[in-house]
Amino acid sequence: MRRTSFADMSCSIARTLEIVGEWWTFLIVREAFFGSRKFGEFERALGIAPNVLTQRLAKLVEGGILVVESTSQNGKALSYRLSPKGRDLFPVLVAMLQWGDKHASGPEGPPVRIVERRTGQAIAPMVMRAASGEALDVSEVMPVPGPGAGEAVRRRMAEVAELTQSRRKA
Amino acid sequence: MRRTSFADMSCSIARTLEIVGEWWTFLIVREAFFGSRKFGEFERALGIAPNVLTQRLAKLVEGGILVVESTSQNGKALSYRLSPKGRDLFPVLVAMLQWGDKHASGPEGPPVRIVERRTGQAIAPMVMRAASGEALDVSEVMPVPGPGAGEAVRRRMAEVAELTQSRRKA
Repeated sequence: MRRTSFADMSCSIARTLEIVGEWWTFLIVREAFFGSRKFGEFERALGIAPNVLTQRLAKLVEGGILVVESTSQNGKALSYRLSPKGRDLFPVLVAMLQWGDKHASGPEGPPVRIVERRTGQAIAPMVMRAASGEALDVSEVMPVPGPGAGEAVRRRMAEVAELTQSRRKA
Repeated sequence: MRRTSFADMSCSIARTLEIVGEWWTFLIVREAFFGSRKFGEFERALGIAPNVLTQRLAKLVEGGILVVESTSQNGKALSYRLSPKGRDLFPVLVAMLQWGDKHASGPEGPPVRIVERRTGQAIAPMVMRAASGEALDVSEVMPVPGPGAGEAVRRRMAEVAELTQSRRKA
């Protein structure tokens, strides 16, 4: 069964999902952050079927998230490393991790904590902030058309503004 | 084709993906943040097939992300709203949006911007911070076993620490 492609939807979330929104993809990226580089390291850490891993690694290389290089003379030993674009996914992973810690942990608590290497202290929760640095609640922000908005996005954003207005009054 | 379930993997990212990691799910949540509440509003905004939308809404209600209530006397008109657990997904969505803005926008720029309602100013990029508030780079943090870590996670975290050590020296 083929999925609909979201790449043509004018939304950065949809475009992000187009590249990394597959079940295994985020977990492969997680392992790359944890230091895995070789095929066997990903395979062992994730318990993933080799053919699935091959496909997903290829997709991540094609999407520019991972960079592959050969680390042996004969070119057979491959090493996969995060590109700068891949490293930029870290806030997404951390936000997911923190949501899971809060809402999907067992009674015993989170299985993994992310700590500052220097101090051993847990990192702060990811929060949305204003340009001034002040933390913002969802209700304090709104979406507006950006420079890349086409007609459909402009229309939808106008609808959203109207919907919000009418519901605030209600 | 059935996918492997990640729910039993001791990882909050995997558990998050188990609940919201489907192609349409994040986009339905996005629309809920934009103010959609009725079936027809989601359907029209997303161009999603009604049977797929029905399934995904049911899954989001089951996962506690959306709360459904009937808004008519006969109980036929349903309204879907984000629960507090669902609203907590906002940092994940914003992190995805910002990644897509940076790495998957067309030459004309992002289609949608998130702005502070009060000032109209764009929100700040989501960054990982230390407990002290200082911004942290990926290289400045490390994963360690949390209170809910089982034997497998402890072993893996020890491997990760070792891998990082040896690669830092190399």
